[in-house]
Amino acid sequence: MAWFTEKHTPHAGITLELGETLFDRKSAFQRVQVVETLEYGRMLLLDGCVMVTDRDEFVYHEMIVHPALLAHPGPERVLIIGGGDGGSVREALRHPAAREIHLVEIDGMVIDASRQFFPALAGCLDDPRVRVSVADGFAHLDTSPGAYDVILVDSMDPVGEAAKLFTAPFFRKVKAALRPGGIAVFQSESPFYHADILRDLVLAMRQTFRHAAPYLAHIPTYPSGLWSFTFASDAVDPIAVKLRDGGPALEDLKYFHPALFPAAFVLPNYFRKKLQ
Amino acid sequence: MAWFTEKHTPHAGITLELGETLFDRKSAFQRVQVVETLEYGRMLLLDGCVMVTDRDEFVYHEMIVHPALLAHPGPERVLIIGGGDGGSVREALRHPAAREIHLVEIDGMVIDASRQFFPALAGCLDDPRVRVSVADGFAHLDTSPGAYDVILVDSMDPVGEAAKLFTAPFFRKVKAALRPGGIAVFQSESPFYHADILRDLVLAMRQTFRHAAPYLAHIPTYPSGLWSFTFASDAVDPIAVKLRDGGPALEDLKYFHPALFPAAFVLPNYFRKKLQ
Repeated sequence: MAWFTEKHTPHAGITLELGETLFDRKSAFQRVQVVETLEYGRMLLLDGCVMVTDRDEFVYHEMIVHPALLAHPGPERVLIIGGGDGGSVREALRHPAAREIHLVEIDGMVIDASRQFFPALAGCLDDPRVRVSVADGFAHLDTSPGAYDVILVDSMDPVGEAAKLFTAPFFRKVKAALRPGGIAVFQSESPFYHADILRDLVLAMRQTFRHAAPYLAHIPTYPSGLWSFTFASDAVDPIAVKLRDGGPALEDLKYFHPALFPAAFVLPNYFRKKLQ
Repeated sequence: MAWFTEKHTPHAGITLELGETLFDRKSAFQRVQVVETLEYGRMLLLDGCVMVTDRDEFVYHEMIVHPALLAHPGPERVLIIGGGDGGSVREALRHPAAREIHLVEIDGMVIDASRQFFPALAGCLDDPRVRVSVADGFAHLDTSPGAYDVILVDSMDPVGEAAKLFTAPFFRKVKAALRPGGIAVFQSESPFYHADILRDLVLAMRQTFRHAAPYLAHIPTYPSGLWSFTFASDAVDPIAVKLRDGGPALEDLKYFHPALFPAAFVLPNYFRKKLQ
């Protein structure tokens, strides 16, 4: 049988036994592949990096969405930059407060492949509360000053087109696109393998936002298995905030529950000390 | 270059680029290997499974030791079953309260190989507060009723000789070897890949101990990257306990700090719901 290996560093990686290849094309931005794996179900790869698997996608999507949507007192308008697989939209739709969810994904092929092969994720993109734009999130922010209560940056790693999503000018654009009281969350790499990238991101965000704090989740197929998101806001301090009651739609979550919110912000010393 | 792969399930694993092989012998119990890896430094393998690497061993050893040793009001006598690499002893020695640390490891070859190739771990075994026995921990408990304030079960996976360390009779022996007020901590596998094993362990421990609660740590080279330990005690409820001040010897820890103690007991829903 064939095995797929993603090197997370030049000298270490994950290896997964493969079944059928379902999709393999090059878009204007990247190689888009959907393959079957025997352990994790279907898997979306962008330029050979694992983005989503059936079995563990719930961790990433629950953890990028629910902390901000429960920390905001009334998250009516939500922007998701990237996230063409639809998983973050699916989780945002659990919040009745979110009346408009706008997905801005640069690569239409990711959306199309996800609609075809990940219906449990992308099926929600047809919901009437969802608007989908195939466009550059960076440029979109300039057209949307003060428009959103929550902005989720569900981006790729900081290489290629996504590199500009990890810079101070981008953070300032995100801030300008927030309504007063708004919250942004950025996927922010692995604190184990990418500690210096994450530290620089957090310190740059603290130049832009009054509060910026990373929080962690365990994603088995991502580099090192430990992943970070960074919560940024002028109005809401994630360390002090009291969460809204998420109501019945959050009861069947597989990873997140309210007690996990403060716990996820407690960092291991090896990274905590880098921020001091 | 050569690569080492450990399959964590039949269909998924970790792969690491290898340097030199430093040690490769069969003991009476298992194959013992020490190899260089380019990403994680030296690595100890038992029967082909990663036990310790230079780069991430600190997580396991800090997290199996400090929660119990700080939750106990006066941990004078500490027993470590397994742990022949010496890492858990090294961490226990940070506690001046621990006047006697007894290591009971069944396989002398693990101790010998660790003394030779992991001096940063096994060097501490010569400390005057440490006693080392090459013996079966299961049998040792019978000879030590009411002897220890803290017992740490730093064992292998539940196969072969170690399988009996995952059973109710073993938990009762551990309890009988504790002094009043005592605490035991068991390494208890991955909640992601071994959720049913861990659930059964915790439920069996709750038949023996008044309190038994799993807590989590992130270990990149272990299956799924997420690992569990289970805290068990008649006297000390880990959810309510106030930790002792660990003093200056804990200030340079790389993973554990006091705020991490309650956070580590907050489980993701996919496992939390299995215990309800």
